[in-house]
Amino acid sequence: MASLKELRNQIFIGTFIHSKKLDELEYLHDTAICVDKTGKIIAIEPQCDQKKAEMSLYPTLGWSAADVAVTIAKDGQFFFPGFIDTHVHAPQYPNVGVFGKSTLLDWLNTYTFPMEASLSDLSKARKVYTRCIRRTLAHGTTTAAYYATIHVPATNLLADLCLSMGQRAFVGRVCMDRMGPDYYLDETADEALAASRASIEHIRGIDPGFALVSPILTPRFAPACSEGALAGLGRLQRETGLPVQTHISENRSEVGLVRELFPRSRHYAAVYDEHGLLGPRTILAHAVHLGDDEADLIAARGAKVAHCPCSNSALTSGEARVRWLLDKGIAVGLGTDMSGGYSPSVLEAARLATLVSNHLAMGGERRGGEDASAPGEGERAKLSFEEVLYLATRGGAEVVGLQDRIGGFRVGMEWDAQLVSLGALGDDVAEDDMQDYGNMDVFGWENWDERVAKWVYTGDDRNTTMVWVRGRLVHERK
Amino acid sequence: MASLKELRNQIFIGTFIHSKKLDELEYLHDTAICVDKTGKIIAIEPQCDQKKAEMSLYPTLGWSAADVAVTIAKDGQFFFPGFIDTHVHAPQYPNVGVFGKSTLLDWLNTYTFPMEASLSDLSKARKVYTRCIRRTLAHGTTTAAYYATIHVPATNLLADLCLSMGQRAFVGRVCMDRMGPDYYLDETADEALAASRASIEHIRGIDPGFALVSPILTPRFAPACSEGALAGLGRLQRETGLPVQTHISENRSEVGLVRELFPRSRHYAAVYDEHGLLGPRTILAHAVHLGDDEADLIAARGAKVAHCPCSNSALTSGEARVRWLLDKGIAVGLGTDMSGGYSPSVLEAARLATLVSNHLAMGGERRGGEDASAPGEGERAKLSFEEVLYLATRGGAEVVGLQDRIGGFRVGMEWDAQLVSLGALGDDVAEDDMQDYGNMDVFGWENWDERVAKWVYTGDDRNTTMVWVRGRLVHERK
Repeated sequence: MASLKELRNQIFIGTFIHSKKLDELEYLHDTAICVDKTGKIIAIEPQCDQKKAEMSLYPTLGWSAADVAVTIAKDGQFFFPGFIDTHVHAPQYPNVGVFGKSTLLDWLNTYTFPMEASLSDLSKARKVYTRCIRRTLAHGTTTAAYYATIHVPATNLLADLCLSMGQRAFVGRVCMDRMGPDYYLDETADEALAASRASIEHIRGIDPGFALVSPILTPRFAPACSEGALAGLGRLQRETGLPVQTHISENRSEVGLVRELFPRSRHYAAVYDEHGLLGPRTILAHAVHLGDDEADLIAARGAKVAHCPCSNSALTSGEARVRWLLDKGIAVGLGTDMSGGYSPSVLEAARLATLVSNHLAMGGERRGGEDASAPGEGERAKLSFEEVLYLATRGGAEVVGLQDRIGGFRVGMEWDAQLVSLGALGDDVAEDDMQDYGNMDVFGWENWDERVAKWVYTGDDRNTTMVWVRGRLVHERK
Repeated sequence: MASLKELRNQIFIGTFIHSKKLDELEYLHDTAICVDKTGKIIAIEPQCDQKKAEMSLYPTLGWSAADVAVTIAKDGQFFFPGFIDTHVHAPQYPNVGVFGKSTLLDWLNTYTFPMEASLSDLSKARKVYTRCIRRTLAHGTTTAAYYATIHVPATNLLADLCLSMGQRAFVGRVCMDRMGPDYYLDETADEALAASRASIEHIRGIDPGFALVSPILTPRFAPACSEGALAGLGRLQRETGLPVQTHISENRSEVGLVRELFPRSRHYAAVYDEHGLLGPRTILAHAVHLGDDEADLIAARGAKVAHCPCSNSALTSGEARVRWLLDKGIAVGLGTDMSGGYSPSVLEAARLATLVSNHLAMGGERRGGEDASAPGEGERAKLSFEEVLYLATRGGAEVVGLQDRIGGFRVGMEWDAQLVSLGALGDDVAEDDMQDYGNMDVFGWENWDERVAKWVYTGDDRNTTMVWVRGRLVHERK
């Protein structure tokens, strides 16, 4: 099934930028990175150009120049780690931008369930999933944690397409045996579990080591799962060690619904915990309205959070307190959450993460103290562009449990990367430049920090020129 | 100076969409609009194609087919009124995206004043202004209310460039005789007024009737103007009848500063009112932290508001209560406010206007009652995509005083319009389509409302294929 071509040894030369820590980017100029045929970074050499690499680097690696594919970042270009989308619903892709004034629960019934149900049609699923993967790759998303639908064949198709198109992915068959409409529901907890197992076995068949595509256990969210389904998925997690993804505390009405449905649980996080679904491999999307105790439990279990600022703003869900989560030691990544979120771009999610953090800071002064579950945070709440780029790469890698393999440039990690091109202006402001590099205008007097800030605030997929996953070129902008 | 070529009679055929009222778009399908050589709409004919126009419409207009330039919107394309950017600082364009975690007052000193001061260099000014105009035209901005700098020659150059590049514009020499740094300040109130007069006379010289480019009186904001300067500008307004643009109540520290500097005025709006600067031709940018009395005074005077959601979010200024302003009968348009705002796009401002209104709605429940100047607004605060498109066109036209000439399609109005192309997908999802039409994927099952919603949330300048001002083609996407 996998159509990966045999890779050559590769060298990448130029400027590399990645997160050193939460609030600090590292700039590696005039550097060379060598990637072997398995897509692994095997050397990082400062002060190195092609000539020097051939003379002194290749011999130490046992490479001969003829066998090496060379990619050089030109002036105004840099290599950056691929983005990690820690929360995205592939079947909702056609609804992107369409949500009206709805909030979570009516949005599900009006827009989402009908669209997801329609993907039982495999030809429609192929069209939607192909476009979703192409689009997200074009935005530099090298890893995505996908929700599929309840359908096993369409879920398997999504996994097949990720593998053949070369996107690293976690693909989850959605488990929901209540709350959905009659036409879109697992009939019983047992059938739900059997279907999830079937999809896991399919993925094991196409990518035995889960090197690129992995299954992920996906209870839609607590209100859509019976106790039996949750408990069964908890057992399946213990049995398989697979990751888990679900939603938590996105919207106040949803939190109220969970309180009604699970009256014995002390809060939303406890529901997952009591069913064996809150552990170090669990990705919790949203986490907007958590209480202190709840966040402490999440931290204690080592579960992670997918922050989805576009979606939370669009569906009027709330403002997740990212600084507060990070302060508690919880790993946080970014999610586009299409189609609650209106954009396929993790860069847009990063941009919105700064803006939402600003709204949180603005609200702080008014909010302070009056609501114990949402104390004011003031200026500290604000996330910088450096911090949101961390969340988009290293933070995301931690959320999906791949922090040793992706999210930065280090020997031993894999080459999941994008080549970013800035729209450098010469004195000639030709119309053509403008179209090639989107909205970024670099006038020439900006320092590197300012260039990266411009990318975060004005960049788009036009600045993502090439994208690689495990060393394989998976997107190139013509 | 004006390089307008002689226009031909023109006919535009296809789907036209514009705002009928605040919350309602009108869809005119299979329609023809005739525009005469002066750029004026002289006929709107429903159920009309090219053949029918030639047979039955041209004769009534005295047109012969050979003299008419024809533009037909294809399937997946529609004509939309040009956007009106009611608040934008052209000299700050190179700083777009660069603001760090600053808020208004430190942002001015760190980023803004040094950049503006540097535009005394006319070759730099030419480069920056040319790029700014090209970029905003490419995003469908047919009218812009520009702040220039304190320099007369550079301000005049901006007006020259708007005229030659064909963008409708209000161009204001910035008046500031205090608070700025030594290196960037009008030396006295008298010198400030003389400089503003000089720029007005220049514009009168290049566009005597202000048909395309008009001067606009531009006290930077109250803290940067002495009482003498404000009073002098007030007199100049009475003398000339020219429009006025300034800032109001963007940031809490700024409001405090105004209270200190103008202790006898009862609030910020009163400062402008007392100096004869609050009238029906006044554009007030931001209006975030207004009190009730203040808004009532603004409404009574007929002054207008430029809402700048990107800037207010980026600089942590606050959330302007647009619904509340509209309820008071105040006209509201949108401003990109570059470079407080990070985007040249009014479409982005429209998108953010919906999101900021959602944040206002979210905050409402927490905020209610505790702060008299910012009562909770709840769900009513939320702006729909139809409403923000109204603000971007008809609302903006009212703000700049051109509601009878631009902002919609009506006989007697001028042809300021854009041709929008949706990225319609056939069954073939070719990579090329993706690049041509940006991020918009129309799968084919969307109704027109959903298509327009997708444009608002996922569109960008790649969807703006052609742009006209007063009938003249001023941008075409290759």
